[in-house]
Amino acid sequence: MKITIERAKLMKSLAHVQSVVERRTTIPILSNVKLDAMGGRLSLNATDMDLDIVETVDCEVITEGATTAPAHMLYDIVRKLPDGSQVELDNGANEELLTLRAGRSKFTLACLPTMDFPLMSGGELDHNFALPAGELKGIIDRTRFAISTEETRYYLNGIYVHAGENNGVPVLRSVATDGHRLASVEVPMPEGAADMPGVIVPRKTVAELRKLIDETNDDVSVSLSETKVRFAFGEVVLTSKLIDGTFPDYERVIPTGNDKMMELECKPFAAAVDRVSAISTEKSRAIKLSIGPGALVLSASSPDAGSATEEVEVSYDADEIEIGFNSKYLLDIAQQVEGETAQFMLSDGGSPTIVRDAADSSALYVLMPMRV
Amino acid sequence: MKITIERAKLMKSLAHVQSVVERRTTIPILSNVKLDAMGGRLSLNATDMDLDIVETVDCEVITEGATTAPAHMLYDIVRKLPDGSQVELDNGANEELLTLRAGRSKFTLACLPTMDFPLMSGGELDHNFALPAGELKGIIDRTRFAISTEETRYYLNGIYVHAGENNGVPVLRSVATDGHRLASVEVPMPEGAADMPGVIVPRKTVAELRKLIDETNDDVSVSLSETKVRFAFGEVVLTSKLIDGTFPDYERVIPTGNDKMMELECKPFAAAVDRVSAISTEKSRAIKLSIGPGALVLSASSPDAGSATEEVEVSYDADEIEIGFNSKYLLDIAQQVEGETAQFMLSDGGSPTIVRDAADSSALYVLMPMRV
Repeated sequence: MKITIERAKLMKSLAHVQSVVERRTTIPILSNVKLDAMGGRLSLNATDMDLDIVETVDCEVITEGATTAPAHMLYDIVRKLPDGSQVELDNGANEELLTLRAGRSKFTLACLPTMDFPLMSGGELDHNFALPAGELKGIIDRTRFAISTEETRYYLNGIYVHAGENNGVPVLRSVATDGHRLASVEVPMPEGAADMPGVIVPRKTVAELRKLIDETNDDVSVSLSETKVRFAFGEVVLTSKLIDGTFPDYERVIPTGNDKMMELECKPFAAAVDRVSAISTEKSRAIKLSIGPGALVLSASSPDAGSATEEVEVSYDADEIEIGFNSKYLLDIAQQVEGETAQFMLSDGGSPTIVRDAADSSALYVLMPMRV
Repeated sequence: MKITIERAKLMKSLAHVQSVVERRTTIPILSNVKLDAMGGRLSLNATDMDLDIVETVDCEVITEGATTAPAHMLYDIVRKLPDGSQVELDNGANEELLTLRAGRSKFTLACLPTMDFPLMSGGELDHNFALPAGELKGIIDRTRFAISTEETRYYLNGIYVHAGENNGVPVLRSVATDGHRLASVEVPMPEGAADMPGVIVPRKTVAELRKLIDETNDDVSVSLSETKVRFAFGEVVLTSKLIDGTFPDYERVIPTGNDKMMELECKPFAAAVDRVSAISTEKSRAIKLSIGPGALVLSASSPDAGSATEEVEVSYDADEIEIGFNSKYLLDIAQQVEGETAQFMLSDGGSPTIVRDAADSSALYVLMPMRV
């Protein structure tokens, strides 16, 4: 292959695909990006065997052909070229060397043959629907913080996306939990998604997808089977294996009988939690909420450091409750509430508590209590 | 003690002093800041036994007195208080508890008695002079990158400051080296410094001082003996032990017979070094300079990755030289050159090379060659 391409275009596409490439891998070709020049386009493909990204970009193709080059190094070089450079990529007859020229720079990169580059097997992706990028961002942003990082609970290491219903209305619901807190967000059921299987989208796929859709406002085409999911938009196609496991029956965790409602202004509440937690021990991060009519007292103490209390105005008129939470988890959820007012639905000091944005019923958070 | 103070003032001073406090220390009181309220002022004092900082700030003193409180925690709390808060600090009759009140927040912090707080013994600091903050910044910025991080060569873990002369004119010279490169900067001899002893100011002191003087344009008063140095400006007094060792005879390292001069535009040169080094191996970072009349060719190669070359225009008319450098060290020095043109004084491919800013004769850098 031999092509010329603007540095800015090449850099943007390389930035996307090299992000999928793992820094440490024992299989050399997984460090490489596959470059394929054909019909006025360069296609860039990277994979870690679980997640595969293909992006295409306009270029001037002088000779069609393909090779695979070290992804991070190629990106590093292109990033350091002067703005406005024209980049020539040329692997001549030799598939094992790629020459990059720009201005007075010349780089020769050791390559690997394209035939060794792993193909993510296609398989039928029977379920197809479209989601506006904005909706997809909202789903990810409001659930990903609750994804478990415990490798042993691999079935919690992603977002569970499935068809559900809310008061008889079909919805597409996304849930993440690590056993300490749970986040559930729903959007109106997109056409074509009603009979999709429930799938668990892995953490890394969620992270890469979120970065990529940050730059778009288009609809994202979603295709999936029971083992794979594909997201396509603009010039990018992201294909990922799904987590092969059973997501727990999360609905059992969402309490239904919590009848004590506390409403509060979310921002000052979050700031107070943050302050009081300065005292809580690094390990437990425990903070106590003492809830009474009209007022909430936050408190924390540590045997070494001392104690902290702060009063927050709330609207509450049920029985007094004392309940403990992990302050970090409480803050994570408070940060999801975009509206002014947060609603806490409580039962008692030993039971899971529901948190909602008063202005947005599409998201629901459950927080497990801690002994304090 | 009992005082009230504006949050912004307290935060600024705490930010300065807590920075000296080590995160991990086996002596509990070294985690604390000593607070001393007297005559309308609060004095804040922190130390790690080698470096001691005292800052004073205006406040309303209701009852005079003193205590010591956990520095990082106190700073964390004050930082998280709402902007514009009035903070009350009160340790009543009990030296072991400090109460902080602001708005509806109340913190009680475990304290330690002030009598246990280590005093950095005064000793006579016989040599006194003043340096404009800008000059001191310049000295630090142009030398600190070359300070050695090898703990075993403790006498290189700082900047060597001493009286010297340049063509018969007395100068205050500062030198740092790690054995691979050397940086030497001089300023006109300040009044009172001529007979000062040569001293090695430790890395941490240099770093804290640099942060502190970033906010000032005043003159900095420097006082020193053979074992201690003190910097005073504004409301801050920083006192540090000096490194107890002998700085090597660095003048022997600075070659005097380098007669081949290469001049080049520094920014494009640095960019080219950065690009070409993308290929050099992580470990050696070696880059080769092939210098001939009018042109310099930079090149790097790695057995796994490939190779890179780039040509740079230079003014040079002596014999051809091939010389290798660590690209990181070369970049570090290129970044010190603020003027457009850098001068390289070379001897041969195996000898130390001098680099200078063509527009500024006060700084000089020496770079040891590498085999390539």
